[in-house]
Amino acid sequence: MARQVSGHEQPVGSTRTLESTSDGAVVRRSVLPGGLRVITEHVPASRSATVGLWVGVGSRDEPPAVAGAAHYLEHLLFKGTANRDATQIAEEIDAVGGEFNAFTAKEHTCYYAQVLDADLPLAMDLVTDVVFEALCTDRDMDTERSVVLEEISMRDDDPEDLLHETFVGAILGEHSLGRPVLGTEQSITDMSPAALRGFYKRRYTTGRMVLAVAGNVEHSQVLRLVRKALRDRLNGAGTPVPPRAGRARVLTVPKLALHTDDTEQAHVMLGLKSLSRHDERRFALSVLNAALGGGMSSRLFQEIRERRGLAYQVYSSVASYADTGHMAVYAGCQPEKLGEVAGVIREVLDQVAADGLGEAEVARAKGQLRGGLVLGLEDTASRMSRIGKNELNYGQYLGVDATVARIDAVTTEEVCALARTLLRRPGGVSAAAVVGPYAHADDLPDDLHEVIAS
Amino acid sequence: MARQVSGHEQPVGSTRTLESTSDGAVVRRSVLPGGLRVITEHVPASRSATVGLWVGVGSRDEPPAVAGAAHYLEHLLFKGTANRDATQIAEEIDAVGGEFNAFTAKEHTCYYAQVLDADLPLAMDLVTDVVFEALCTDRDMDTERSVVLEEISMRDDDPEDLLHETFVGAILGEHSLGRPVLGTEQSITDMSPAALRGFYKRRYTTGRMVLAVAGNVEHSQVLRLVRKALRDRLNGAGTPVPPRAGRARVLTVPKLALHTDDTEQAHVMLGLKSLSRHDERRFALSVLNAALGGGMSSRLFQEIRERRGLAYQVYSSVASYADTGHMAVYAGCQPEKLGEVAGVIREVLDQVAADGLGEAEVARAKGQLRGGLVLGLEDTASRMSRIGKNELNYGQYLGVDATVARIDAVTTEEVCALARTLLRRPGGVSAAAVVGPYAHADDLPDDLHEVIAS
Repeated sequence: MARQVSGHEQPVGSTRTLESTSDGAVVRRSVLPGGLRVITEHVPASRSATVGLWVGVGSRDEPPAVAGAAHYLEHLLFKGTANRDATQIAEEIDAVGGEFNAFTAKEHTCYYAQVLDADLPLAMDLVTDVVFEALCTDRDMDTERSVVLEEISMRDDDPEDLLHETFVGAILGEHSLGRPVLGTEQSITDMSPAALRGFYKRRYTTGRMVLAVAGNVEHSQVLRLVRKALRDRLNGAGTPVPPRAGRARVLTVPKLALHTDDTEQAHVMLGLKSLSRHDERRFALSVLNAALGGGMSSRLFQEIRERRGLAYQVYSSVASYADTGHMAVYAGCQPEKLGEVAGVIREVLDQVAADGLGEAEVARAKGQLRGGLVLGLEDTASRMSRIGKNELNYGQYLGVDATVARIDAVTTEEVCALARTLLRRPGGVSAAAVVGPYAHADDLPDDLHEVIAS
Repeated sequence: MARQVSGHEQPVGSTRTLESTSDGAVVRRSVLPGGLRVITEHVPASRSATVGLWVGVGSRDEPPAVAGAAHYLEHLLFKGTANRDATQIAEEIDAVGGEFNAFTAKEHTCYYAQVLDADLPLAMDLVTDVVFEALCTDRDMDTERSVVLEEISMRDDDPEDLLHETFVGAILGEHSLGRPVLGTEQSITDMSPAALRGFYKRRYTTGRMVLAVAGNVEHSQVLRLVRKALRDRLNGAGTPVPPRAGRARVLTVPKLALHTDDTEQAHVMLGLKSLSRHDERRFALSVLNAALGGGMSSRLFQEIRERRGLAYQVYSSVASYADTGHMAVYAGCQPEKLGEVAGVIREVLDQVAADGLGEAEVARAKGQLRGGLVLGLEDTASRMSRIGKNELNYGQYLGVDATVARIDAVTTEEVCALARTLLRRPGGVSAAAVVGPYAHADDLPDDLHEVIAS
């Protein structure tokens, strides 16, 4: 295996083998003219193939006036291309029983098709067609506008989704990362065809794209198909854009955000700033997160659900961006128990900040991550996602075994040190959000106000 | 391969090979003393194993006074056994990164653990321990009571889940199938430890159970492990209980059910009675469902989302039980568009009832089912689910290729005939449910009242 070279450093026109494992899996990367990176994972035992085209463009790249543009555009690309109308696109993928869909996040957008291996040429053709040849007509934009508005309404009717948006807005302040991916009713209503087409033309460049394919596929076959599909699109002089590395400091003041809603449960999220994805302590953070609220044996699950029966759902989660990140605890409980739940969450965080975690807990958290990693890669869609996201975010390949080795190398002391840094008080909880039947923030229990008091 | 014999007809103590495919997958079934069926699928390329213990007991088996008992019991079994307390159970599965969970449905309950293949003995031990050795103490029952109540509140805060329950209640009338799996706040609050323990003891018999294991496992190894785990539990004289075959006629009168909720969208479900799972036309029904609202190219998706932009989510679905079934269309839309959406759904159903489906549509729907079937079986959890549910519901093994052959054999005329029977009007839509901002059923648009008028 050759020395690792980042995707954006690898010469245009070259192919490298990044990994070759004993069970026959091979990962290869090519850089094509125009800077398009193609990364494949050959999974010989699979009967399927998943093609994903990752574009390093997301909601954080939107000026406020066009909030929601990246996601709106993602919808619009499925409405028709120079070669197919929306109905034909749908008919072609349904005919082979595949899935063709897309998702937009804060820092990227991904278009993917999962099919039986024999249908790889169709999947490649469909994905490249919508991403490169979409028409984005005014008329389609009008029809799709109401679909996007429905999606916003649906999000607002789901308390957990709404809470998540409220929390992210609170913890990331005025930074563009803090805005909802879907945009707002106003920004979607106001979005002009020219603005959206301009966003498409300027942002969707091959240097910002990674084509990731996993399954029973050969790298050479994928290259042939992509060259055939894109032809002169690959004649540009562009090179791969290096992984996003945010420079902006994201400021946060402790904040308690309330979204009043007539729900039966109070839905609460408490969180704090944590690490960017480029921070080397991210493996220790995964271990900390698993031990705090990642599984049934975690501190939070045991305290809140098992011992006290206060919630059905309680968990912690981590989000990492190019220049910042956050860690949060979610729980849904009866409105009159909200103070108690917030108090227990604070106690658990305080305790871990002060006393750290035990060896057995850390060992268990590492075991959980190891097993979960392998069990989460049984289908080609998740394998495609791993290699594509990895290339876009890091430019550097990290195999499954290498990832496991990084997790294994985390020491208890590293996890405890990180807990002291991140969870320390005052200031340990820097934002909280609640969705529930409270008219004013003043109606929220004192324990919750104290949780965010520094 | 031997002639197929149903699981309940196969002699106790014997093992049969049900399928052996070219890619190395082998399906075997044994019947153990006490009537426990063990069915395994050896998937040589997999690195994981999933163990599922299916119990042919669900919410339809509950007398009204203990509504929700099957699900409440499922929770309670994880609270501690003669060998482990709840924390130990959680710690053991988390340490290997596995997933150990359960779900309760109207006709069955399933306890499952997905692990790396080397951890099969642990998975088997955990699953059999909670199902056979749970303590069900009064104290644990009290703690878990509030967790189940939280789960009910959470369901009520999710409009789509709430709508589904409202619809099922409307279409299945007073039959026990029409009651929510979770029970009601009242029935859970009132549930006595004696009632729950009685339910456990009477219903959880080995003859009603199927142990299904899929992954990189050998049938003989599974048998050794289950014999070791269950020992004298397998000494009974019981034989496998034949597949459930409901005899009760489930009556339905056309009904429009409203659950008033302050949501942004109106959530609507329109449906009709369809087939039991033993009806030979079930493959034609799958094709009809796929063509109506199963994919992006389906009639409903194209009419409601693509052409008119009326909804973000719109789909049809089928549920089949031992003696009845239903088919339903869901859409979420703006409250002021509800009449239009209901009207379009009715038009689509009327049109298909009157004119049937075209050859191309049927061919596409069959392709969709074929591809979806294979793509849906990439992980061992879904493979375990397929063989376990199949054994419990039919007692008869139907391989993937045989299932594909049954789908391929469906003719356009069969699909059209079924559409004429099921979707005919008057009476074509026998129940509708709405969750949304309407105070009274009278406030619902006329189009919706007409939809259920016979």
